[in-house]
Amino acid sequence: MNDLVPVTVKGIYMMKTPLGPTPMVLLYNGDKVLPIYVGISEATSIESALNHEITPRPMTHDLFISLLDCFNAKIKWVLIDTLDDGIYYARLIIQTDDLKRELDARPSDCIALALRANADVFVRKKVITKAAIDKNEIEEITRMAL
Amino acid sequence: MNDLVPVTVKGIYMMKTPLGPTPMVLLYNGDKVLPIYVGISEATSIESALNHEITPRPMTHDLFISLLDCFNAKIKWVLIDTLDDGIYYARLIIQTDDLKRELDARPSDCIALALRANADVFVRKKVITKAAIDKNEIEEITRMAL
Repeated sequence: MNDLVPVTVKGIYMMKTPLGPTPMVLLYNGDKVLPIYVGISEATSIESALNHEITPRPMTHDLFISLLDCFNAKIKWVLIDTLDDGIYYARLIIQTDDLKRELDARPSDCIALALRANADVFVRKKVITKAAIDKNEIEEITRMAL
Repeated sequence: MNDLVPVTVKGIYMMKTPLGPTPMVLLYNGDKVLPIYVGISEATSIESALNHEITPRPMTHDLFISLLDCFNAKIKWVLIDTLDDGIYYARLIIQTDDLKRELDARPSDCIALALRANADVFVRKKVITKAAIDKNEIEEITRMAL
């Protein structure tokens, strides 16, 4: 666990990119911030969880949590594990009394689910070293956000 | 089971609506068609499953299937159960050797998951009676689709 950095999910910002407005989730650890671009529906789901919104109908991540409940399973933590060629890879660690499993997942799904399950989000240190930027720098960027 | 109508998932069509282009999934039973508006990411996920595409990273519905696999659980079938005030309600029936559960879900999630699990999709007869339209009628509409 020594090379795992705990982060807090700050929020979603819509950023200008050459492909048009794209949502970005910010993960904070002290003065370091890891920005990750996410899909629009995952961004909506993350934002909804951050605001403790209960949607009239279950979103896909809510359904996932219902399925975990069926098996008395919990999300133990999630880990943003690797950054390779611009793509982040993450793992969802789930646990029951008898079983512990790691599932390959996208960071956006992991974050949306961790927020719903009050589970910790970790980022591997090498990913922070590679891609995190300074808090001041990101605050400048998000001030210019849409 | 007598009032459950089996349907096949025909595909996604982008329709013009007052709110802008909106994806619609078509469910066929003989000469009857049930059209259901769905979100853009659910539409993408349904289309991806219909085309047997393997995306480079697991989509949220793929992650759901991975979780089922962890527990040796299967999707037995899905049921579009009720239409109330313009909103469809559906149920996802999952089963293991020991357990059978029904989860409250949106039709779009149920369809995206059923296609991945090769599970049957049923619609309750009263929903077909209320909302299904004629095959000729929908074919006329989809000819005018975007």
